[in-house]
Amino acid sequence: MIHYKAIGKIMGALLMLFSLLMLPGVGFSFYYGSGDHIPLIISGSASFLIGVILFFSFAKQDKNIRKREGYLIVTTSWLLMSFFGMLPYLLSGTATSISDAIFETVSGLTTTGASIFPDVESLPKGILFWRSMTHWIGGLGIIVLTVAIFPLLGIGGIELFVAESPGPTSDKLHPRIRETAKRLWYIYLGLTVVCTILFELGGMTFFDAINHAMAAMATGGFSTKNTSLAFYDSAFIDYTAILFMFLAGTNFTVIYFGLTGKFDRVWKSDEFKAYTGAILAFAFFLTVPIYFYSGHDLEKAFRDTLFQVVSLITTTGFITADYTQYSSGLTLVFFMLLFLGACAGSTAGGIKFVRHLAFFKNSWLEFKRIVHPRAVVPLKINGDRVTGKIITHIMNFLLIYLMIFVTGSVIISLMGYDILTSFGAVATCLGNVGPGIGKVGPVDNFAFFDPFSKVFLSFLMLLGRLELFTILVLFTPYFWRAN
Amino acid sequence: MIHYKAIGKIMGALLMLFSLLMLPGVGFSFYYGSGDHIPLIISGSASFLIGVILFFSFAKQDKNIRKREGYLIVTTSWLLMSFFGMLPYLLSGTATSISDAIFETVSGLTTTGASIFPDVESLPKGILFWRSMTHWIGGLGIIVLTVAIFPLLGIGGIELFVAESPGPTSDKLHPRIRETAKRLWYIYLGLTVVCTILFELGGMTFFDAINHAMAAMATGGFSTKNTSLAFYDSAFIDYTAILFMFLAGTNFTVIYFGLTGKFDRVWKSDEFKAYTGAILAFAFFLTVPIYFYSGHDLEKAFRDTLFQVVSLITTTGFITADYTQYSSGLTLVFFMLLFLGACAGSTAGGIKFVRHLAFFKNSWLEFKRIVHPRAVVPLKINGDRVTGKIITHIMNFLLIYLMIFVTGSVIISLMGYDILTSFGAVATCLGNVGPGIGKVGPVDNFAFFDPFSKVFLSFLMLLGRLELFTILVLFTPYFWRAN
Repeated sequence: MIHYKAIGKIMGALLMLFSLLMLPGVGFSFYYGSGDHIPLIISGSASFLIGVILFFSFAKQDKNIRKREGYLIVTTSWLLMSFFGMLPYLLSGTATSISDAIFETVSGLTTTGASIFPDVESLPKGILFWRSMTHWIGGLGIIVLTVAIFPLLGIGGIELFVAESPGPTSDKLHPRIRETAKRLWYIYLGLTVVCTILFELGGMTFFDAINHAMAAMATGGFSTKNTSLAFYDSAFIDYTAILFMFLAGTNFTVIYFGLTGKFDRVWKSDEFKAYTGAILAFAFFLTVPIYFYSGHDLEKAFRDTLFQVVSLITTTGFITADYTQYSSGLTLVFFMLLFLGACAGSTAGGIKFVRHLAFFKNSWLEFKRIVHPRAVVPLKINGDRVTGKIITHIMNFLLIYLMIFVTGSVIISLMGYDILTSFGAVATCLGNVGPGIGKVGPVDNFAFFDPFSKVFLSFLMLLGRLELFTILVLFTPYFWRAN
Repeated sequence: MIHYKAIGKIMGALLMLFSLLMLPGVGFSFYYGSGDHIPLIISGSASFLIGVILFFSFAKQDKNIRKREGYLIVTTSWLLMSFFGMLPYLLSGTATSISDAIFETVSGLTTTGASIFPDVESLPKGILFWRSMTHWIGGLGIIVLTVAIFPLLGIGGIELFVAESPGPTSDKLHPRIRETAKRLWYIYLGLTVVCTILFELGGMTFFDAINHAMAAMATGGFSTKNTSLAFYDSAFIDYTAILFMFLAGTNFTVIYFGLTGKFDRVWKSDEFKAYTGAILAFAFFLTVPIYFYSGHDLEKAFRDTLFQVVSLITTTGFITADYTQYSSGLTLVFFMLLFLGACAGSTAGGIKFVRHLAFFKNSWLEFKRIVHPRAVVPLKINGDRVTGKIITHIMNFLLIYLMIFVTGSVIISLMGYDILTSFGAVATCLGNVGPGIGKVGPVDNFAFFDPFSKVFLSFLMLLGRLELFTILVLFTPYFWRAN
């Protein structure tokens, strides 16, 4: 028996909260006189009303939430938010079809940042703010998920690396998960505020600053400018964005340790070291060829390289230079970056470094196991031993991820798109990045896809955002048969 | 201490045997008066001489061969055969550079079948026969490896599925590995003879028949015609080739059971069922679009589809129709087939179905494990339980394989080739198939690559042929430090 009533109650609470987050857009609409307050008010009211009805219909029930309800709650939350989140686009007429509205909303909530709008600067301000807000909600949602819910559900094998592992350690982030979530939320909010201020200091209007700050902290990538951050052509803004994308891609527990001065704990995180190391390595090695190809001075070449590397690795998708313009080899390198993902427990999508780390370390150990077949050769991450069950789970995750990438690319290419465009669209949607290669390169958009492909790509965004298993398990008989 | 002398003795014996296999080419050279007997005689003599010297220098030593010598013997064998195997090309002047000669020889010995000769019909007959012979030697070598050597080395996690697993079962193929190897060799030789006869009945000359039969049984793909088997445009030859490619891609133990009437044992092989099922499924589903795209009648469309599917899945690479001519979606589907590989214990290269099967079955079970975290959920193949260690090993193999594919593609694309060509060349070389996509499609050849890329692609062929770990382990400190 699945406790649907318990799910209904939580969905009600979620929709009420969700509707409140539509209000700031109404404010901006009035302030700028952009005339799009009505669609936002109607959408918010609808969401609030359904939320109230759901919540109070099931208010009295007090069944426990178990794992199975957990999976359904996570998937249903994202679906419901996508449904109510697309209403402003449809009611305002900015999205001219349901598939467009679905794509843009899911792209926002999953912090992907791929867009069907060729000219975002023409969008009314209230809608534009709502668009950035979907990023920010999605980023917040994923922090709550990774800290409070995924560890309980055992999704993706990284539950142990996301929050502090339970057990008799005295220096845990905080014993109670609710308190932990609150702290992470303060970090998320605080960093967004600081980022907004810095963007304003860099010359953005308050509106552009807050929009870009929300997109950066959510590792989303929606911009209020058609040319993304290339519009500003400002070293200060570029480096600010690099810093905040980097932070948004860091495990928030590690940021907490950093803020409270526990640098030894920061340095104990193998994932953080791999993440930082990879960014620096790619930035330095790619600066050389990009310096020659672009003809820019060394600082600009390095900044462009670092920006694009951080933007793709953190799955943000802001753009200051077209990384597909140099050569096919460099395009392929940047395409590879779509498969990295930043840290678990951050707002980044994609595979995550902890999984790559587990794969690389285990591969190396496999050779030791071949040469010494009787030796016990354990895999360690962050100094802790990782069980065989989790190694298997992580490697299985990686293979399923790649299989979905391949299958998805075949499906998109069978819809009539060329192979590179199919690879690019699927990789960037599944990894929640934004820009891809082929016809969905960094200066392109997704408007030209047919409705089926748009909905299918939206599904891939959700699949990637919820770490595959959360959604896929709903398609197995084990889930529905379990007691 | 590595027992280098024991390795030397075995290498000596190998080279003597290898040199004898150059003789038939001399015969064809004389018969056709093609004038290329001198290069073959010199090459054969050199190989024989070095073999004799090595063998008798170390004839008296009787150290045991252990695992570590095993790895070195396997890799060194393929390297030595590649070295002496390329002499005929160089001495005859048919290959105009060392990188060309390396590529063609390694492509032959690894049963890949990618070629740098744009016009094979102009090659002298002795050299042409030697070219097919390298396939046949490679196929034979891999049968010996998978039956007799890999199970002892524990390579790739499939050792249990290749030969009969050791243990107290009464119906083993044969208790002694030497006897087993002999039987498999009779099957290999017998099928080659039958295939030659059938090709002759289909209208080929004896020379063309034996060359194509050797290439088919080795799942190689070198043809004596520029347009491969499309030259004959014969349903009889096509179906004959399909049958023998299919058999060559089957686990030879399963063929043995089939020949001795033990069909229940054939049917017990999950890999054989998956292999057969996948071929039929792809052939049937792809026939429909190819029927419409090609404009051929249904029989021809089905035959072309089945032929190309079997040719790619078995990693042979014979061609009767250009599978990249239809649409980008179908091209991508055929490209995917490059990653299947046929059965373990066959002459096919690539990943092998048993590994895909382990991945798919385990993925499905992972969901059961998520829903029932405390349950013991074992993976079974062929009715036998597969240990967690082997599952990890197999999934790690798959991930390393894909990582090498990606890294290899980046390297080739950085040499200045477009992305699809890079993907195609690396996938087809690593998988020992032959044709790829992009500029190395089924009607193209590898002549245009620069020397570095040719040598690098040759290295990938060896890496794929020897199941990655055999070669890679030599690059780890564990191997050289072990006692």
